[in-house]
Amino acid sequence: MAKKLEDYITTIPDFPEKGIMFRDVTSVLESGEGLRLSIDELYKLTQDIEFDIVAGAEARGFIFGMPLAYKAGKPFVPVRKKGKLPRDTYQQTYNLEYGTATIEIHKDSIKPGQRVVLVDDLIATGGTIEAAAKLVEQCGGIVVKILFLIELEGLEGRKKLSKYNVASVVKYPGK
Amino acid sequence: MAKKLEDYITTIPDFPEKGIMFRDVTSVLESGEGLRLSIDELYKLTQDIEFDIVAGAEARGFIFGMPLAYKAGKPFVPVRKKGKLPRDTYQQTYNLEYGTATIEIHKDSIKPGQRVVLVDDLIATGGTIEAAAKLVEQCGGIVVKILFLIELEGLEGRKKLSKYNVASVVKYPGK
Repeated sequence: MAKKLEDYITTIPDFPEKGIMFRDVTSVLESGEGLRLSIDELYKLTQDIEFDIVAGAEARGFIFGMPLAYKAGKPFVPVRKKGKLPRDTYQQTYNLEYGTATIEIHKDSIKPGQRVVLVDDLIATGGTIEAAAKLVEQCGGIVVKILFLIELEGLEGRKKLSKYNVASVVKYPGK
Repeated sequence: MAKKLEDYITTIPDFPEKGIMFRDVTSVLESGEGLRLSIDELYKLTQDIEFDIVAGAEARGFIFGMPLAYKAGKPFVPVRKKGKLPRDTYQQTYNLEYGTATIEIHKDSIKPGQRVVLVDDLIATGGTIEAAAKLVEQCGGIVVKILFLIELEGLEGRKKLSKYNVASVVKYPGK
């Protein structure tokens, strides 16, 4: 029987701290079949929408966003950590478990009215992707769908993204 | 006439400091045609070799390495900054202009004898990619080719990589 995406995901108990079941996407990438399947499954989730651009946040949003953009023949807009982008940027600061982080987007990378698909590897609390969605909107873009390879349902990240169209390839009930 | 890759690269004078001509790859990605061309040109540079794995270093090595792996139907091995990979790793520390950086690879991500193509966006001094090549070799892998989208010939990064098979899509004579 053909392998499913979840067959390629390794779970590492108690990483990075006790009680966390870490879902390791690198084990998906370390198989040629797993890698191809991951991108093809994300691509399927774009087939019910029209969009102009794929965007993703450093660094794991690049891993899945770029091949998806390549397959779809669309541009990729990188959302980066502060200080990495060379042209004029918008910024968003958001809360982490300890402290805050700031991410940026090029002001001219998305034109008003352009339709954007946001991609990330995993949704946990949803803080990073919410900030990335706000950056797209600051440019005047429309977030038409947010895609994740893996969703940790127990962390309820979808609540934070309730105004968006969210889809994920594999769902785990826990944290 | 069909556009070439260099037509999509924006040059930003005096970024991040005076005297530096910054070659901006994000402008390549922000065009669907530029993005596709960049990956297809990198793929062409793999057609004279046999290889098992694509590897790239966080974060811009992910941008070009992942779609190349997708197109080639190969696995992608991410080289990450210290503390990001969940399984056992090898580490390499290398010099930056100010200070040092440490990058890691999963010990089990490459098997002895596997043939690896390393990819990055740009070769300047070559410090990061040299450290990434050492990580591949610590796993027992063979670096069969190192690919760059852009080469800054004035910085002589190739000297540091003289024992490897190095190729780049676009070359600029300066720094």
